[in-house]
Amino acid sequence: MDKIPSHMTVIAISAPGGPEVLRPEQREVPKPGAGDILVKVAAAGVNRPDVLQRMGKYVVPPGASDLPGLEIAGTVAAVGEGVTRHKVGDKVMSLTSGGGYAEYCVVPDSHAMSVPDSLPLTDAAALPETVMTVWYNVFDRGALKPGDTLLVHGGSSGIGTTAIQMAKAFGAKVIVTVGSKDKVDACLKLGADVAVDYKTQDFVAESKAATNGKGVNVILDMVGGDYVDRNYDAAATEARIVQIAFLGGPKTTVNVAKIMTKRLWHTGSFLRPRSREDKAAMVNSIEAQVLPWIADGRVKPLIDSTFSLQDAAKAHARMETSQHIGKIVLTV
Amino acid sequence: MDKIPSHMTVIAISAPGGPEVLRPEQREVPKPGAGDILVKVAAAGVNRPDVLQRMGKYVVPPGASDLPGLEIAGTVAAVGEGVTRHKVGDKVMSLTSGGGYAEYCVVPDSHAMSVPDSLPLTDAAALPETVMTVWYNVFDRGALKPGDTLLVHGGSSGIGTTAIQMAKAFGAKVIVTVGSKDKVDACLKLGADVAVDYKTQDFVAESKAATNGKGVNVILDMVGGDYVDRNYDAAATEARIVQIAFLGGPKTTVNVAKIMTKRLWHTGSFLRPRSREDKAAMVNSIEAQVLPWIADGRVKPLIDSTFSLQDAAKAHARMETSQHIGKIVLTV
Repeated sequence: MDKIPSHMTVIAISAPGGPEVLRPEQREVPKPGAGDILVKVAAAGVNRPDVLQRMGKYVVPPGASDLPGLEIAGTVAAVGEGVTRHKVGDKVMSLTSGGGYAEYCVVPDSHAMSVPDSLPLTDAAALPETVMTVWYNVFDRGALKPGDTLLVHGGSSGIGTTAIQMAKAFGAKVIVTVGSKDKVDACLKLGADVAVDYKTQDFVAESKAATNGKGVNVILDMVGGDYVDRNYDAAATEARIVQIAFLGGPKTTVNVAKIMTKRLWHTGSFLRPRSREDKAAMVNSIEAQVLPWIADGRVKPLIDSTFSLQDAAKAHARMETSQHIGKIVLTV
Repeated sequence: MDKIPSHMTVIAISAPGGPEVLRPEQREVPKPGAGDILVKVAAAGVNRPDVLQRMGKYVVPPGASDLPGLEIAGTVAAVGEGVTRHKVGDKVMSLTSGGGYAEYCVVPDSHAMSVPDSLPLTDAAALPETVMTVWYNVFDRGALKPGDTLLVHGGSSGIGTTAIQMAKAFGAKVIVTVGSKDKVDACLKLGADVAVDYKTQDFVAESKAATNGKGVNVILDMVGGDYVDRNYDAAATEARIVQIAFLGGPKTTVNVAKIMTKRLWHTGSFLRPRSREDKAAMVNSIEAQVLPWIADGRVKPLIDSTFSLQDAAKAHARMETSQHIGKIVLTV
């Protein structure tokens, strides 16, 4: 292992604004505390909250890094006291509490997962956020069962493409909504059974048609807004609707009689504010249930594009076009 | 057992309208089919859906009696083929699929529960709807645990007063909302820990104050309307909000970010359209879990008033004042 330098290059948010406010800075390399590991970052995933944070629309939780970057992959460079799961030199991928846009990043040992030999680190950096989000919301809260039908809004996003693969690996049927013909094709190629172009088709009617009129059993929704009440229409009896974002706005009008008639469960979660312990528990489940699918290639990230860390501004500009299909990754 | 007559007096809905449209009629005494029992009705509970049905606002399910009356207590007068749970002469209480406002009523053997010796039939007739509604929505869907806090809107209704007793018998803390000082006193006397007068107090603030700011774990809501988003405010992390009616209207504006932040579960149900098998399963659970509380007096109906079957119109007029506290019962 190379000697750890005292300082490193990071990408910081110089002021709230457009992609151009992302600027390289020199910072001290952080030291791992008890239970933490220091990772020499090989690649960092770009996520929608990074963009919101750059715009000044996402408040960083107390104690978290002010730097963007919620997931990384790389090599363990140093370990803190009491670290048992990983050692210097191990290849790992992990959620971070911020600070992934950097040459080094500290993460909890309990949140880092071993990277299968078959998986390049650039791919590994694209997995933690989407795999944890899909696992927790679709499989844990949503209680997806083999044979169920899952409806995913935003099927071509990083979360959407991961949801397609994980649900198919589990034996479920998958319907997605997307906004273009290219995205329809990409989702079908990944294994989706039905891909609905919301610009020309009604997802409620298509979901009913694909389920003999019964509706879907689980919905993963990152749109909110007027999709919420339409989700109730697309849902089967006892369906679980899991809200993970609201790109269409958080406030909306709903008809609660639909919840009663179908005995629906409308729930949701934010991943980032979950406790260290909760995230460690999710990592344990994922290592048991999902890592085998990653190791054998049934679940692999769809990479839209990679940019060097210095070009983080270009990566954000790409995400803001919403033309990307799959994940955007920064390489260090 | 007396001979079963060929005809009986019932109270029918002569036309949609006010309480005065409820009129006595002569009908044939029904015969119990396979798996059914014929009950000589001693008393019938009056429920809000009876009033809506009388107004023409509640569509009777296919195959159900056109007569009002969703719960009865009485004596088994005859049994159909394959009946195993009850015999002629047994005292039973049961949900009906309609037709309770009558001298005789057929119900499934699997839905009838034995009436404990300590319980008068007039009291027994007031229990099936409320006990099944509270059991299923608060304990099954709502997964109330000992030590949890339950918030019940409409605390002085039949369902509310039963919810107070069942939740207290189970070791939960209970907060109710009601609309008058008399109702506050009645609910506190029944065991509620906190009774909020919604005309002068804010149930969100009072629920927070009663739970050290944490919020409530389960909400049983029959109001809907603007209570829905306020329920999200009153709820604790991972709370279950169970919608069983919407006296304030089914359509309302909500903020789904609140569902995500607290990881809420908003669900609900209608009791009446559930399958015969689903109701039989609920009856089995209730016999095991709730009948002991009824037998030892920890759960007993709060009877607002009793009217003779002929005076059903007066009973409906009483319910429409919304001044009643507890159940209204017709005696035959």
